[in-house]
Amino acid sequence: MTIENISSNKSFEGWHKQYQHQSSSLNCAMRFAIYLPPQASEQKVPVLYWLSGLTCTDENFMQKAGAMRMAAELGVAIVAPDTSPRGVGVADAADGSYDLGLGAGFYLNATQAPWKSHYHMYDYVVNELPELIEQHFPVNTKRAIAGHSMGGHGALTIGLRNPERYQSISAFSPIVNPINCPWGQKAFEHYLGKNRDEWLQYDACELLKNTKAKLPILVDQGTSDSFLDEQLKPQALIDVASAQQYPLTLRMQAGYDHSYYFIASFIEAHLKFHFKHLTA
Amino acid sequence: MTIENISSNKSFEGWHKQYQHQSSSLNCAMRFAIYLPPQASEQKVPVLYWLSGLTCTDENFMQKAGAMRMAAELGVAIVAPDTSPRGVGVADAADGSYDLGLGAGFYLNATQAPWKSHYHMYDYVVNELPELIEQHFPVNTKRAIAGHSMGGHGALTIGLRNPERYQSISAFSPIVNPINCPWGQKAFEHYLGKNRDEWLQYDACELLKNTKAKLPILVDQGTSDSFLDEQLKPQALIDVASAQQYPLTLRMQAGYDHSYYFIASFIEAHLKFHFKHLTA
Repeated sequence: MTIENISSNKSFEGWHKQYQHQSSSLNCAMRFAIYLPPQASEQKVPVLYWLSGLTCTDENFMQKAGAMRMAAELGVAIVAPDTSPRGVGVADAADGSYDLGLGAGFYLNATQAPWKSHYHMYDYVVNELPELIEQHFPVNTKRAIAGHSMGGHGALTIGLRNPERYQSISAFSPIVNPINCPWGQKAFEHYLGKNRDEWLQYDACELLKNTKAKLPILVDQGTSDSFLDEQLKPQALIDVASAQQYPLTLRMQAGYDHSYYFIASFIEAHLKFHFKHLTA
Repeated sequence: MTIENISSNKSFEGWHKQYQHQSSSLNCAMRFAIYLPPQASEQKVPVLYWLSGLTCTDENFMQKAGAMRMAAELGVAIVAPDTSPRGVGVADAADGSYDLGLGAGFYLNATQAPWKSHYHMYDYVVNELPELIEQHFPVNTKRAIAGHSMGGHGALTIGLRNPERYQSISAFSPIVNPINCPWGQKAFEHYLGKNRDEWLQYDACELLKNTKAKLPILVDQGTSDSFLDEQLKPQALIDVASAQQYPLTLRMQAGYDHSYYFIASFIEAHLKFHFKHLTA
């Protein structure tokens, strides 16, 4: 597996770099970004995988979250993949809508045409990307996973299904119960078909009901998020976690919205949370 | 003078807000952004004016610099104007080049057609904008000024010409000697005409030769900045400051480039520098 460096910026004494590679899971060329803290020049560091939300690429989090300062202080690498397959021949929503197709991979393996030829973001994030990262960069195999909105859904579902691969999970404004909200229902029907039994494996609330592992989870949710009531519904996750006595902390943050200004305000707490578990 | 709020995001317990207003200096509608730290809900706070570089708007710094964390901790407001007049009837470069016209106001008062009808960013930043800010927001009259690249040129020249209006000046990667670099020569010839005597009032090195005031200046410059040798030439500023025994600190930062990753890496130091002088 080869990767091609396409940009490098020194940042907080470490390096932000973008790479391009041919993905076998997604059957197309993909770009990802990595932040390597200064400690990585002398030792192997743990990795936080960040999954972004609808319409994003590898760039949004790296440019807007203000995460590198604390990543550099703690000595944690951050890897940000794109949010869907891209390029010539990759299907997009017929009507150009932002919540299906390009930029909206939902971190699942699609089973329906035309999506099934490329939309395998679940396999890419769980297997191919970490393998690539651990082959090419000075990182160890301690991993954490986090994300925002659709990426919060991705972090929760991937973390809950693969507790042996991660030390901790966190999310900002996640879609916690996609089978019961418009974004999730639309995406799952297109990518997975009409059989709702197939949807359950990608729903954080459903997975939390059945998991035996107890990977710690931290969630921050703004009370002024315009998607709160229709799409995000954090109470559903609180209810399941409470019934399961699951180690989940969900903080409602007064006045904050769905933007990266919200993420930036609390990313330090998330990095410290992951660092504690990555180095425990 | 009325202003219209067009966005609000809670950020680090304070607020990032964008406003639109009709500018009398620029003779067009203008947008600016302000970050109000949490302290501003209880007391008047000092203000750092941030001037962005070529192609930027009010958004680049607010989204990418990671400045709000420390502004919230210190209790400093930040105001970011656009980088040129905009809108219907505002002249742009005939060939669409990025370094003249829209997004390239160079913080001066143009005297040549077609620019002279709108391009008065100097007046806007020195007089109109602070008046507006001090009328509408809980700020005091302690001001600092900073900027990046073309905005570093703006901060240096505006600060040096108006030492009674500011407490301190800082810049990242500034154009310190525009009369002797391609960006400056192109802009000044178009905006100010061929008489080079008219250019001197907008050249930081020339101004530093003649100023009696000793407003403290902090400059950070990356050694891997691709514009370093042809456009930025920091040694010219160092030489003049040294000859004048001017209180300027210019730090060459090894390996950093011209991007916002560089700015983010050192913005905390700039905010602390300004805070010290704003509250002295």
